[in-house]
Amino acid sequence: MPEKEILKDNERIDQLYSSDVQIIQNPNCFAFSLDAVLLADFVRPNHRHKLKTVDLCAGNGAIGLFLHQKVGGHFWEVELQPQIADMATRSIKLNHLEDRYTVLNMDLKDVNKTIPKDFADIVLCNPPYFPVTPASQTNPNRTLAIARHEITTNLAEVVTQMSGLLKMNGRGYLVHRPDRLAEILQELTTHRLAPKRIRFIFPKEGRNANIVLIEAIKDGRPGGIKIVPPLVVNEETGSYGPEVRRMLYGK
Amino acid sequence: MPEKEILKDNERIDQLYSSDVQIIQNPNCFAFSLDAVLLADFVRPNHRHKLKTVDLCAGNGAIGLFLHQKVGGHFWEVELQPQIADMATRSIKLNHLEDRYTVLNMDLKDVNKTIPKDFADIVLCNPPYFPVTPASQTNPNRTLAIARHEITTNLAEVVTQMSGLLKMNGRGYLVHRPDRLAEILQELTTHRLAPKRIRFIFPKEGRNANIVLIEAIKDGRPGGIKIVPPLVVNEETGSYGPEVRRMLYGK
Repeated sequence: MPEKEILKDNERIDQLYSSDVQIIQNPNCFAFSLDAVLLADFVRPNHRHKLKTVDLCAGNGAIGLFLHQKVGGHFWEVELQPQIADMATRSIKLNHLEDRYTVLNMDLKDVNKTIPKDFADIVLCNPPYFPVTPASQTNPNRTLAIARHEITTNLAEVVTQMSGLLKMNGRGYLVHRPDRLAEILQELTTHRLAPKRIRFIFPKEGRNANIVLIEAIKDGRPGGIKIVPPLVVNEETGSYGPEVRRMLYGK
Repeated sequence: MPEKEILKDNERIDQLYSSDVQIIQNPNCFAFSLDAVLLADFVRPNHRHKLKTVDLCAGNGAIGLFLHQKVGGHFWEVELQPQIADMATRSIKLNHLEDRYTVLNMDLKDVNKTIPKDFADIVLCNPPYFPVTPASQTNPNRTLAIARHEITTNLAEVVTQMSGLLKMNGRGYLVHRPDRLAEILQELTTHRLAPKRIRFIFPKEGRNANIVLIEAIKDGRPGGIKIVPPLVVNEETGSYGPEVRRMLYGK
């Protein structure tokens, strides 16, 4: 399909060369960021054909689509906002992956109306990062604000739904902000998700981490957390380091 | 005092050049490790003369003594094992620091018999790292086993005592194993200690972290955790990297 037929106003197509996939983006509404690429990279490869993966707060479906070669089976992309869910649907078409991806334009609170509990092998989530407080400055663009701030959902709810969807020994993957680390590990643990592997992402050498990636196992034994080698995103010059270049552009 | 007068059987004197201090060590009983050097380095400098610092599980007093220039005021070194507490007492003498250091040869359970609650500005702790389980292989040397395994105390107790000793807004410093990270943050949070700054230590490039350093503030606001830049201990060649060399040998 020619680009002009699949794209709406202000939209563009971005390509993730490393996973050979094209994603419809709209900077006024939703565009995946490096966080999505980092989370997809952090997921363990699993090529089983019967695998069931749910992406909560799926946005334009970027994380799920990045995984189309690395993770087998079917993906359910749960996204609340109709305009963004529609971008996910069209990105799936653009990549001819309709048989492997289902977009669910719904509130994650209601996800069990469609997907049963104890169903998924993998649940992914790149949730809104920022709590809403009286001092919060949320984006005046409501669509962007919902993707960034805990307006329509929050960490406790995301983790509750992640845990409910996962089978025993299923794996939950979360990308979040390290300033909330204690709260995140606490919520996971409280909801039967044992944190097992954590990676911290540093924007530059000598700076504090600004992203954390977490893998948790439902009903996993407590303890045994692995803090895997850190990733420094940018080199001193400001350009991406070799590992990020590999994630974005392949070899 | 000549060395032979201050040293007992199997003891030696190790020098930490960076902080110009000498520590009596006994490999059969207790010798500080890099963990102690890392924790001392992690502590924020504070030169107030009225500062009160308590070191729980103080061992031969190494961490406290490493801080004699960086932290002002008085130190209380709480150590259960008489033979090790005696090494601490003699190390303090060796460095002519008797007026600033007090060794308390006692169980940390009883610390409030001597030091009141809400007393300390700083509490340090390098506790035993390993839970005792039916499968645990503890060192047949009982003295070494007590320093490494949770035989006479455990994480919950250490954190309870740390919190009790600290004034409001006092700082607790803990070195531990990252495989227990979720449990550690949980215990701190439960005991009014807000984790605020965390550093992960990696033995080598490409390996998982094997040490975690944590600074917590009593009654601090939750959130706002800083994951500071990681430290990689060894270079590819196996020799210490520049930051560890600075910690050990000074500039």
